[in-house]
Amino acid sequence: MFLKKVLLLSLVSLTACQYQAPKSDVEIKPKNIILFVGDGMGPAYIKAYRMFRDDLKTVEVEQTVFDQMLVGAIRTDPIGHSGVITDSSASAQAIATGNKAYNGTVTDSAASATAYATGKKTTNGTLSVSGSQRPIPTVLERAKELGKSTGIVVTSQLYHATPAAFITHHSHREDYAIIADQFFDNQFEGLPYADVMLGGGNKYFEREDRNISDEFASINYQVVKNRDELVSSTGERLFGLFANSGLKRMMDRSDSTPSLAEMTEVAIQKLSNNEQGFFLLVEGSQIDWAGHRNDIVGAMSEMQDFESAISTALAFAKQRDDTQIIVTADHSTGGLSVGAEVNGESHYHWNSEVVRSFRLTPNEIALRAKRSGNLLAEFVNASTMTLSDADTEILRTSPTKNIDTMIKLMVEIVNRYSYTGWTTEGHTGVDVYLYAFGPVSQQLVGHWDNTAIADFIFSWLE
Amino acid sequence: MFLKKVLLLSLVSLTACQYQAPKSDVEIKPKNIILFVGDGMGPAYIKAYRMFRDDLKTVEVEQTVFDQMLVGAIRTDPIGHSGVITDSSASAQAIATGNKAYNGTVTDSAASATAYATGKKTTNGTLSVSGSQRPIPTVLERAKELGKSTGIVVTSQLYHATPAAFITHHSHREDYAIIADQFFDNQFEGLPYADVMLGGGNKYFEREDRNISDEFASINYQVVKNRDELVSSTGERLFGLFANSGLKRMMDRSDSTPSLAEMTEVAIQKLSNNEQGFFLLVEGSQIDWAGHRNDIVGAMSEMQDFESAISTALAFAKQRDDTQIIVTADHSTGGLSVGAEVNGESHYHWNSEVVRSFRLTPNEIALRAKRSGNLLAEFVNASTMTLSDADTEILRTSPTKNIDTMIKLMVEIVNRYSYTGWTTEGHTGVDVYLYAFGPVSQQLVGHWDNTAIADFIFSWLE
Repeated sequence: MFLKKVLLLSLVSLTACQYQAPKSDVEIKPKNIILFVGDGMGPAYIKAYRMFRDDLKTVEVEQTVFDQMLVGAIRTDPIGHSGVITDSSASAQAIATGNKAYNGTVTDSAASATAYATGKKTTNGTLSVSGSQRPIPTVLERAKELGKSTGIVVTSQLYHATPAAFITHHSHREDYAIIADQFFDNQFEGLPYADVMLGGGNKYFEREDRNISDEFASINYQVVKNRDELVSSTGERLFGLFANSGLKRMMDRSDSTPSLAEMTEVAIQKLSNNEQGFFLLVEGSQIDWAGHRNDIVGAMSEMQDFESAISTALAFAKQRDDTQIIVTADHSTGGLSVGAEVNGESHYHWNSEVVRSFRLTPNEIALRAKRSGNLLAEFVNASTMTLSDADTEILRTSPTKNIDTMIKLMVEIVNRYSYTGWTTEGHTGVDVYLYAFGPVSQQLVGHWDNTAIADFIFSWLE
Repeated sequence: MFLKKVLLLSLVSLTACQYQAPKSDVEIKPKNIILFVGDGMGPAYIKAYRMFRDDLKTVEVEQTVFDQMLVGAIRTDPIGHSGVITDSSASAQAIATGNKAYNGTVTDSAASATAYATGKKTTNGTLSVSGSQRPIPTVLERAKELGKSTGIVVTSQLYHATPAAFITHHSHREDYAIIADQFFDNQFEGLPYADVMLGGGNKYFEREDRNISDEFASINYQVVKNRDELVSSTGERLFGLFANSGLKRMMDRSDSTPSLAEMTEVAIQKLSNNEQGFFLLVEGSQIDWAGHRNDIVGAMSEMQDFESAISTALAFAKQRDDTQIIVTADHSTGGLSVGAEVNGESHYHWNSEVVRSFRLTPNEIALRAKRSGNLLAEFVNASTMTLSDADTEILRTSPTKNIDTMIKLMVEIVNRYSYTGWTTEGHTGVDVYLYAFGPVSQQLVGHWDNTAIADFIFSWLE
């Protein structure tokens, strides 16, 4: 009872520490703003990750970095029959272009990122343009126009939906070449809008018809291509590409590929030299990608990458009182549940040990099996989990030509052994959590529409 | 843009209104405490309900009562291999009694209610006793011992897990007769611990071997059996039973059965006569029951009943500054997702109109079909949804002997048409939301273990 009370008091004071009371009549405006988006990181991912990271040697389930910063939740509806329509032609245009698969009440990353970037609702598939194709100003652009430094750090290709919505404007998220061009072509006072861009995407940045990396180099951006070049970079402006498309999952990366935390640290180091402050977007891009594959191992890998990046930013922000960190997600992916029926039985249990037993994700195991021709050997090499004879046989006799097929086989096994549930390979509509650290966190307490986050950031910038 | 800003400002001030700043050095202790538990009400239920209640004539998605009170989230782990073990014999006892199905890392209602009632972790299936069978004091008992009035209002049988954990002590939640006895036998200064008890449960309160209703009547509790008797009751102490076991789902109730809001209103009216204040537990018991059936129509019915009860309490609390309302859930049920794959396709959509089209739940439709022998006729009578020829045929030719079979047929159709996903007929481990209104809401901002809620309530009582 006494120990429990001590624990409670420490929790209370921990929470109290997070929210600095607003200074009476003086309006506080943070100098630096860092927005973290965990793509696809719905509520069940947060719970699964806490259990995945739990120190089994203690009786308590340890709080994650997320838990320590919780202030509210966000609803993410796109323009649907019940979304907030800020531009009715957007909806009409989506229908006119046949983009109707994207036109439901559950958001995609483009519509939700547009809301976070601009404060405006749009239809799924659309990047920060109105229905009549007018660009809608973003918080990153506004920060730059007001003299701040700006950055984008992701593990997807940079021209993927979430980062693209902050710095480009286009009606179709899949038009990668057009979007990649805008990273360079959209400029303010003769320079691109972002000072630091780190992620993947050689494929469309270095095309036969145009090499955008070279163009960045020609205007004194340092172009970096691997971890060593990144961490030893001396330039103030950086353009870093570490993969042809997205980076590998954190667990699968070689030493030459940086972690999201390393990219975040370098970005903050460069951007914080500006006395007028900075805006930085950091995306944990592939939590979503693992969710689309119903792959809990990959999802936990990417959650860990994302949490480490947040910790890096927190270490910076805790040394000062002028930096606001916001962490949220754009939607949930896969209909993940922590605990699920297996063989017609409900187990009231989620077996995190199965998930913990992997040192590579099913993606990488399948890649290696395609080369070696032996899925079972690659699986056993990557995981210490104990397979039944029947499942051993399934992997032993699996064809190794098709990567998707092998991944499906493996995630079915992992989900069955760990009691992990999924309802779709698409997105679901559940609200996402809102986390905050910094001088204006108290303003964010409560339940918000995703557009409100941009409205807050605009209000802090002005 | 201007309208948007006005909306934002009103949201900000709404949130600001919810949290009255703590009065500097004076420790605030609310006189009245009302704890609402939505059984099984995980995050996806909140989202589905918002869409279910949305006013389609406006472009905005309206906030629910829940949204207006959001302050945080709660983790609900029972004693499992990674739960906080406050009494190691509890775990040993569960194993010794063969109660191992209940011994995972996903909670049941008994363990979570024990945490909310006592601040202690226990194994699934256990009601406010330690592993060595010692009763653990509850917040309701403490409130009574300190001179406050106390009440319990539910739509389940009163001896069901959640209410039982606040006022009885037993190692097996299924021992209904033993638990029912304790509602009367556990006493303080010659009277039962609760002044007002409203719910279902004739079955075990009025047995051949013992009639507990009569015993309550003999000590001047007014015993009420229907809505009219409830709303016209004049006694200060009330014992109300409105069903043999649980009440019918809200949509299915006749006029003689009260709503949860009506029961809550009467309870507050009685309890608030005590100048020393009161503690009241209100449970939306059957959100969970609908979840176990994977029945989204029933779940939305019970969410509506629950929200109305909260609104009733808010109307009371908003007229004064001494009443703290807390709303949360004990776990999530069914692995619900808002949007799911149907026929191998992800739809990025949840069709709330299908769910809205019902005026009775599948439970009641099946009951009526068992009597009439015609499931299709009863279904068409209860819903305006448009069925395919194939599904019409399924219902037309359905046998009508077995209620469970008919319910399964109907919920499969509703889930398919509405894109509603489920992963289990049991519980899942996702965190649940925490909502608050009242003078000490600010203390509750953040992420908590379910035991912390009892610790807060104990600290406010002392």
